[in-house]
Amino acid sequence: MHHCYFNGKILSAQETAIGITDLGLLRGYGLFDYFVTYNGKPFQWDWYWQRFENSAKFLRLPNPISKKEAYKVVNQLVKMSNLPNCGIRFVLTGGYADDSITMTKPNLFIISEDIHAVSPAEYENGIKVIGYEFVRDLPELKSTDYKHLMMLKSDIKAASASDVLFYKRGVVSELSRSNVFIFKGETLITPNKNILKGITRKTVLGIAKKNFKIEQRSLKINELVAADEVFTTSSTKKILPISRLDDHILGGGKMGNKTRFLLDEFNDLVKNW
Amino acid sequence: MHHCYFNGKILSAQETAIGITDLGLLRGYGLFDYFVTYNGKPFQWDWYWQRFENSAKFLRLPNPISKKEAYKVVNQLVKMSNLPNCGIRFVLTGGYADDSITMTKPNLFIISEDIHAVSPAEYENGIKVIGYEFVRDLPELKSTDYKHLMMLKSDIKAASASDVLFYKRGVVSELSRSNVFIFKGETLITPNKNILKGITRKTVLGIAKKNFKIEQRSLKINELVAADEVFTTSSTKKILPISRLDDHILGGGKMGNKTRFLLDEFNDLVKNW
Repeated sequence: MHHCYFNGKILSAQETAIGITDLGLLRGYGLFDYFVTYNGKPFQWDWYWQRFENSAKFLRLPNPISKKEAYKVVNQLVKMSNLPNCGIRFVLTGGYADDSITMTKPNLFIISEDIHAVSPAEYENGIKVIGYEFVRDLPELKSTDYKHLMMLKSDIKAASASDVLFYKRGVVSELSRSNVFIFKGETLITPNKNILKGITRKTVLGIAKKNFKIEQRSLKINELVAADEVFTTSSTKKILPISRLDDHILGGGKMGNKTRFLLDEFNDLVKNW
Repeated sequence: MHHCYFNGKILSAQETAIGITDLGLLRGYGLFDYFVTYNGKPFQWDWYWQRFENSAKFLRLPNPISKKEAYKVVNQLVKMSNLPNCGIRFVLTGGYADDSITMTKPNLFIISEDIHAVSPAEYENGIKVIGYEFVRDLPELKSTDYKHLMMLKSDIKAASASDVLFYKRGVVSELSRSNVFIFKGETLITPNKNILKGITRKTVLGIAKKNFKIEQRSLKINELVAADEVFTTSSTKKILPISRLDDHILGGGKMGNKTRFLLDEFNDLVKNW
């Protein structure tokens, strides 16, 4: 992390501290959002801002910053990062509560970060995920609640995997921080329930509709195992093949042609953002 | 909040701050525990310590402090509070992660606080709760996750209520931060699933078994509405009647005789703690 906007000031992220009575810390009362820049410009800014505002409404947290002001802060952070591109994290919490429970005024942080890019080898070979029977609490909300992922970290590592795939009663929802797609023939299929509706997911659906039939619907885990190609989408992963689920090899065990086509299109889109 | 132990130091709670890369803040990766002192002595210390250790194991967080050392810190905090009694909060988080996801070393806070005691009128008249169809994620864990309660705060206030009662498919689990009991005839009944097993709950069961038949089992919301007496238990509430659920009047709308008997016994127990 590089710099952080908090209470109207921008400091180095190391220097920025929050009081221990913050309700995000004490009560998990917090949300966030995250996006990256291309050519120094926030990717899909309007969509990310809208989702951030929706999350705040959902959690009943007043949003303390206007879109215009937030955009100014983001651009300042990007400039200060001295990098061609960086990640930007918004974190909004319930703010300080001396009695550990009563909200008064929310706390907002806007943080600039390194982008942890996926390696070319991972794109070619795809990643391994482990399956986990679970639906997130309030999946449609980008809350700060990642307890289950954190608890599973050692299992993921022990399986030489990168992430976890959530499913319940045979129905796939999402990875811990990204959406899931499969190709079956000429059809692109992605779950539409119990998921966070990703901005990269939306971008990919926009790209794909020119070339493929699209189905947003309940996706069975059996379908995923039998799919021609499987991939996941997120801001930092873009379009990343999933080549293993536990002991199953998915989609031939490497990046498929249709996935490659979408990734190329995506990279074209962001090249001139 | 009065004082806070953090990283081996005790400072005023106001002065104590945590870096913004803490995983408790960014990822909801945290747990806590809370107890009060009587006659300056931690109430049921062995049980609370055991639960704190169990929570840490459950969340796969290494516990950075020994029981002996923690007890020393607690006693220091109590002495510094200059109060006959105070509340003590343990908060354990996943610690700092510059990449916002990889755990290295947990952060532990031990905080002394005012006890927000229940008023005599509330004991006599009981409290009102609103019903909410929900089971907490990982209810058996004392995590920091209180998103739903925080979102419901304005509904609770609008209903002139004090808290929320969780139930699912007609089965009662708990209040947001306390357990539920009913009396039906000479039998004391309390849910045994999808709950945090409270230390006050355990203490009350110990007191009650000398005088009443006890059933720890699934409790239907219809049974609760038709009960002779209904009450809730927690460290700060002790044994507090619930006299209203939404539009229903419970247990005659005030403290019942058996509830009063248990509260008297409880107060006797803590008087000489």
